Amino acid sequence: MRPICGAASGCAVHASGKGWCCAWRVQCCGSDKGEIRLTFSPGPFGRGRRLANPGILFYRGLSIISYLGAKDPGMGSEPFIFCPRCGARLTQRFMFGRERPVCPACGYVVFYDPKVAVGVLVEHEGKVLLVRRRYDPGKGGWALPAGFVEIDEGPVAAAIRECREETGLIVRIRSVLDVFPVSMDPRGPAVFIVYRGVPIGGSLQPGDDALEVGFFPPDGLPSPLVFASTRRALWRWRREKGFPERRFY
Amino acid sequence: MRPICGAASGCAVHASGKGWCCAWRVQCCGSDKGEIRLTFSPGPFGRGRRLANPGILFYRGLSIISYLGAKDPGMGSEPFIFCPRCGARLTQRFMFGRERPVCPACGYVVFYDPKVAVGVLVEHEGKVLLVRRRYDPGKGGWALPAGFVEIDEGPVAAAIRECREETGLIVRIRSVLDVFPVSMDPRGPAVFIVYRGVPIGGSLQPGDDALEVGFFPPDGLPSPLVFASTRRALWRWRREKGFPERRFY
Repeated sequence: MRPICGAASGCAVHASGKGWCCAWRVQCCGSDKGEIRLTFSPGPFGRGRRLANPGILFYRGLSIISYLGAKDPGMGSEPFIFCPRCGARLTQRFMFGRERPVCPACGYVVFYDPKVAVGVLVEHEGKVLLVRRRYDPGKGGWALPAGFVEIDEGPVAAAIRECREETGLIVRIRSVLDVFPVSMDPRGPAVFIVYRGVPIGGSLQPGDDALEVGFFPPDGLPSPLVFASTRRALWRWRREKGFPERRFY
Repeated sequence: MRPICGAASGCAVHASGKGWCCAWRVQCCGSDKGEIRLTFSPGPFGRGRRLANPGILFYRGLSIISYLGAKDPGMGSEPFIFCPRCGARLTQRFMFGRERPVCPACGYVVFYDPKVAVGVLVEHEGKVLLVRRRYDPGKGGWALPAGFVEIDEGPVAAAIRECREETGLIVRIRSVLDVFPVSMDPRGPAVFIVYRGVPIGGSLQPGDDALEVGFFPPDGLPSPLVFASTRRALWRWRREKGFPERRFY
């Protein structure tokens, strides 16, 4: 990857060259610029594969690069045009570090937030629990049991609820496996928290959102596995089991 | 804690007794009810202390209990009255498992989501980086460098940005320490992701939001420490250093 950047700095990321197709944000150490915008043209893995992995990249060990997506900050989700508090038409104003929709009538400020999704890597007898999705995104593919956190529930409770709804199993959450950024979901950008869990009750049966559910060994994972975060979590789990870690994009 | 519950089940949580003051959601194993509402009267720690710890509770090792807060699902943040897409007045309708504000004119569905906050436990030479807050919530108290994730940035990038803005230090993120639910923040419910990090550049100086910044040893933490999540993260860090873990609420 060769970023295009107009900034001059001693930081290694401030190289110039032929870029890729997406807009990314870069934070680089040693630079008081802090954040710069890069553009990239399609790379060796093609646009689709690159877009499937919009997460954090380390560039020469010095920089954090995150996907910016489309210009609309509400990418995926819809931009706000009217004030949800008083119904007036919103205007754009620079507030809290960036342009945000602000209501000229009542002063309401729209903060576009990523949604919070949670999933569980449920392990039982050396196998992992996966769900074949009935609906888009990822329709027909296999993924971790997962879903969105409601505003009035904790992330652990949401992970347990989603797992029960999709697989019929009740799990106990053990720990946080990792947190992944999700930027290409049609429902809007999200932060995806993946927990480790073990089954403690219930009975295995696909929920309304699932076509099939099942446990799979590390050397017999089903195909296709959908969502970069599912693949990243599973490859890490495979590595723990002594299988080679595969690339996730 | 003695929950009041009308449901009949073999689950240990389905006891009855004198409750406490808040509304909580319970998910209990072995019950096909799944979620029940309990009410609690003020407990032995008093209302204030209980409210300071609205996180996940395990009840007799069988149940997950999460804080529901006020009846308004947008508690802390404001409820939506008008459609942000077309400006029409919203109505309530049962969709996707619960009542949600829906636009009768254009069909827009409001999903109230928790915000995503990130913080960093930055360790250097056995000491931890803390910030004394200039503004509410927690004005004048000490907390981890932290803030909200913007919709177009990853959580790691946001954690690095917030740390740089508040403390002047550039950090490298090592791992996820844990994820905490936040329900009593006046800015609305949030999921708080705490990372572990180490400084790799910059210079220590308080940002616009901070009164002071500094590194503190595990046996010399400043006071008051604000936010239950900060305390939970710090007590865990203290325990790793061989100091006794203190209660965080």
